[in-house]
Parts: sequence; C-alpha cells; structure tokens
Amino acid sequence: MPMGGSALDMVGVPLPDETLLAAKKSDAVLLGAIGGYKWDKNEKHLKPETGLLQLREGLEVFANLRPATVLPQLVDASTLKKEVAEGVDVMVVRELTGGIYFGKPRGFGTNEDGEEIGFNTEVYATYEVDRIARVAFETARKRHGKLCSVDKANVLEASMFWRKRVISIAAEYPDVELSHMYVDNAAMQLVRNPKQFDTIVTNNIFGDILSDEASMITGSIGMLPSASLGSSGPGLFEPIHGSAPDIANQDKANPLATVLSAAMLLKYGLGEENAAKRIENAVLDTLNKGFRTGDIYSAGNKLVGCKEMGEEVLKSV
Amino acid sequence: MPMGGSALDMVGVPLPDETLLAAKKSDAVLLGAIGGYKWDKNEKHLKPETGLLQLREGLEVFANLRPATVLPQLVDASTLKKEVAEGVDVMVVRELTGGIYFGKPRGFGTNEDGEEIGFNTEVYATYEVDRIARVAFETARKRHGKLCSVDKANVLEASMFWRKRVISIAAEYPDVELSHMYVDNAAMQLVRNPKQFDTIVTNNIFGDILSDEASMITGSIGMLPSASLGSSGPGLFEPIHGSAPDIANQDKANPLATVLSAAMLLKYGLGEENAAKRIENAVLDTLNKGFRTGDIYSAGNKLVGCKEMGEEVLKSV
Ligand SMILES: CC(C)[C@H](C(=O)O)[C@@H](O)C(=O)O
Ligand SMILES: CC(C)[C@H](C(=O)O)[C@@H](O)C(=O)O
Repeated sequence: MPMGGSALDMVGVPLPDETLLAAKKSDAVLLGAIGGYKWDKNEKHLKPETGLLQLREGLEVFANLRPATVLPQLVDASTLKKEVAEGVDVMVVRELTGGIYFGKPRGFGTNEDGEEIGFNTEVYATYEVDRIARVAFETARKRHGKLCSVDKANVLEASMFWRKRVISIAAEYPDVELSHMYVDNAAMQLVRNPKQFDTIVTNNIFGDILSDEASMITGSIGMLPSASLGSSGPGLFEPIHGSAPDIANQDKANPLATVLSAAMLLKYGLGEENAAKRIENAVLDTLNKGFRTGDIYSAGNKLVGCKEMGEEVLKSV
Repeated sequence: MPMGGSALDMVGVPLPDETLLAAKKSDAVLLGAIGGYKWDKNEKHLKPETGLLQLREGLEVFANLRPATVLPQLVDASTLKKEVAEGVDVMVVRELTGGIYFGKPRGFGTNEDGEEIGFNTEVYATYEVDRIARVAFETARKRHGKLCSVDKANVLEASMFWRKRVISIAAEYPDVELSHMYVDNAAMQLVRNPKQFDTIVTNNIFGDILSDEASMITGSIGMLPSASLGSSGPGLFEPIHGSAPDIANQDKANPLATVLSAAMLLKYGLGEENAAKRIENAVLDTLNKGFRTGDIYSAGNKLVGCKEMGEEVLKSV
C-alpha cells in the first residue's frame, strides 16, 4: 500500500485512508523508509513524515523497540575503538505515540508582547508511561534484567512525572534492576561506555535522539531493524535508517535493516520465532562469507550492491 | 557567594537574593559545579539545579558557548578511533534561557479523562531565536565560517519556527555557510564524523544533550569550559562537567575545566585575551609535561591529584 512520498505523488496525501485501513486489518506491517528531497519543502500536513506519524498513531504502536548490537563481523565498522564497541548490545525502548510529537496545544501564534512564537507541548499521562514502562520491564527481563530509564527530571515536570510512574511500575518487576539517568548524561555514557547499558526506556523525543546515537555507535545503521508494538493489533516493522535520497537508484543501499525488520516482524508480529531465526542466520552467514555493502565495507571483504546482497541472503536461507 | 547545595545548607534556598545581586553587579561570574546526592530528592524549587536555572535567567545569559576540542596531547583519551577523534574542534552554541526549560504552562494536572499528567512547553519567540542566531553567526565567522543549525523541523512547530528565523538572520551573514540538520541525525553524525562540524547552534534541550555528547567525544569532559553570555551585563563561566559527587573530597577531580573557564572569563567576560592565552598555554604546558588526573590518564604519563595539577599549572603560568 502506498504511503509517504509515493502516496503524495499518487493521491496527494502522505497516508491514504485505504492504507491505514489495510494496515489495521493486517497481522503485521512491514514499512519501507520514507521521505526524500522532493517533498522536503512541503507544508507540514503534506510531509511524508506526517504520514508516518499518522500511521504510528493510527495503529497505536506506542512501544518502539530499537536494538543496537555490534556484530563481531562488523566491529570494525564502528568509529569507536574496538575494545569499546565490541560486545555492545543495547535495546532502546522508545515511547512512540505520545510526548512532544503529539502533545497539544501546538502551532504558531503571538505572545503577550505581540511577538511571533512557535510552540509544542511535552505531555505524558499515567497510562502512557505505565504501558511503555511495562513493555520495557518485560523486555529487560528477557534480556539481562537491567533497565535504565532516561529523563530530564532535574528540570522538566513531564520527566518528574515519567520517573514517578516508572518507579511505581517497578514494583511489579522486582527481578529487574532499575536505574535512572539524565538524558544529557545518557548521550555521554553511550559514547564513553555503551556496554554499561542493557535496556533503555525513554520518551519519544529523547528516544529519537538516543536510539540514533546508539545505532551509529554500532557503525552499521544500515543493519538495524525496529519493531513498533501496541497493546493489541498489528505491529509496525521498519528499518531504523531513513530513505537515503542521496544514493537513491544507485543500487548501493544496504538492504539488511529491512530484511532484519522482516525477521522482527516474524518474531514479534507473528510469533514465528523459528522463521525469524532462519532469516537472522542467513544474514549472519552472508556476512561471514564476506559480502558487504559500501556502508559496512572494510578491506578484505567483497563489496556488493543492494540487489546482490539480497540475493546472497536468499542463497543462505 | 553561595549557591546550589551550599546555599541550601546555609540559607535554605538554592539561589539567595544576595548572590544574584552580587553576580549582577560583577564584571563576570565564575561558577563551580553544583549539585550532589544530598539534595537529589529535594522538591523542585529546592534543587541546586533550580538555582542554576534562576541564575542563568537572572543574568539573562541566553548564549551558551561550549567548545569541544580534541587536544593532540589527549587524543588517546577519546573512545573514538584516533583518525576519527584527532582534529575535532566543534563549538556548540546553545540557547540557554528559553525553550522547554522555561516555557509555560508547565506542571502537573489531570487530562480530560481524569488521568494524571505532567507537562512542559517548548516555545520560542522571534527575538529569542534571532539573538542566539546572531551570536552563532558571529561565532562561526570568527572560526571556520560554517554554521549548522540543529532542530526537529520535520515534526515540531517550535523547530519550524526556529529554522525560519535562523534562515532570515542568515541574510545578515552572507559570508557564513549555513546548513540544517535534524537532531537525531546530529546525534549520529557527532559519532560518525565529528570533524564535519565547525559551529552548531541549537535550542536549550537539544544543546544540553548534544554538547554533552560532543564533549564526551573529546574523551576529556574534565577539560572543557563554557561561557554563557547575554546582550549586556556579566557573563557566566563554568565547567561543562557536573559536581561529580562520587569522587568528592578524594582529591581526584580534574581542575582544568574550571581553570579554562577562568580563561574564557578573561577572554569573553573581560576582553583580556592575553591573560586568557597565558592560562591556556600554562594548561597545555602542564599536559606536555605529562601531568594527568585520572580521567585523562594514559600509560606513560604522571598521575596526579586535583591539588597537584593546580600547582603544576601555576608553575607554568
Ligand atoms: C522521520 C521522523 C518523523 C522519525 C521520528 O522522528 O520519529 C524518524 O526520525 C524515526 O526515528 O523514525
Ligand atoms: C544541571 C542542569 C540543570 C544543567 C542543564 O540541563 O542545563 C546541566 O546539565 C548543564 O548542561 O549545564
């Protein structure tokens, strides 16, 4: 189904009703990266990004799981020193349908002095923090049992409220070790020693920033999938990276983040763990054979394009 | 003058009126790091951090200059690979007295469904963006003539407004090359290739996050000073790092960020460029002699405590 730029070109809106309806009726949704230069100057309601936000909101997928894992095969792709990068395995659980992305009031206006202003509202309600906290505690429990909640509770009331609710939900998960960190410190610690983190939970905007930072620390953002889940209904699965308009139609893009998103779809969306494992293993096999797209290339490996990489993965399934 | 934790202990408020008055009457203000475990659980109006925000607001120091420079002597202290870290020299110009830190309405309440909420307002007015943009363009002009404005204009109205005003001020600085970047991408690019940046300008909260990330990329946050300037009146000079309560009273802290803040005070606060240079050179000399506090120590150097480091700098002035 079309959405983003292609939907704008076809029917003039970034998320056609038919697309949202079809997504809602599906068991799971696989999403390609959206956006491009052509629509960058569009008004807000006609931006590809607005379609994405409408889809997340429409599916109520409030929990965005973003793994940032350094594969042994790709440790050299990181800009971090080998001893800092190797073994990094962080899961960022980002709140996806609340906070400043959706808060009202928002818009443009004038202040008391007649000056023009632009404004947004960062706001969280009890049920919003509670449900993302529960997903995060469950996620941490299945990993190494450590959850770090990131906020700016030394300044923002929305963060103080966030922290209060996370602490109260923690009582349900005595087996998970909970810590708190300010967002500025978290941005530092991800660079200083990313291995200290197991699972991170944070709000929509901080999660946007920190998950991108974490993914770049792995050096292979072209490799990273994500899952967005709701309480019920279909999940949304997409690569973390954008649409990379600078290399469009050059057969250069790394397809593995989308392939691995399909694996996450099988695992989290359809409960097909074995099928997911087959795809993940095929990707690892392909890397072990030395195939690399440009973004993860290092000397001694075989440089391939997007299509060839896809074909190699298929051979290994 | 007391402020932060010591003021709380002495007179029960984090910024006594006398302190603000004395600061306002001064030519420049040098500030030690604030905060500590003892006051962490205080209510908001009794937190050390609240005193800091009141001081910034009271002095109207809206422009926070945060250099992140990798010194050749300390390139090994970075967790980034040598070829990525060496030569990094970024200046983050952070808006300091507006945005979500000060925006109203803010607080706690209930929403239409009777659910408890916590909320803040991200808001910028024309004059606020214009004046920080001008400081940033002037700063970039004195450096390498490149300014990158960081925002989230694909989602937030406050950011669209920010970008519109920055573009309009750019007309006054045709010699400065202006670019725009989304904050999530900026958090990635600082890890991927920090050398691409010369001067960055951004809002209060994004600046809080990105300047800490940038400073950690240098590997020596214990080395980095900052200057906060207004249109008139005294500037505020302080190290970027916090009060490090975990190593309090152990004579371990690196004093150089505070020493270099005094140099920034001389340069930006009093116009005493030569005196500033003397201090900066004394710090470089001390590093060249191999003296290192624990945070920047690497094999082959001389490990010293806070006091000894200070004395060595004095010897080199
Ligand atoms: C494209 C944009 C609206 C989106 C976001 O900010 O959520 C993207 O950066 C992401 O992280 O998926
Ligand atoms: C202590 C805190 C209020 C402060 C801020 O967020 O501005 C600090 O992190 C800083 O960056 O100076």
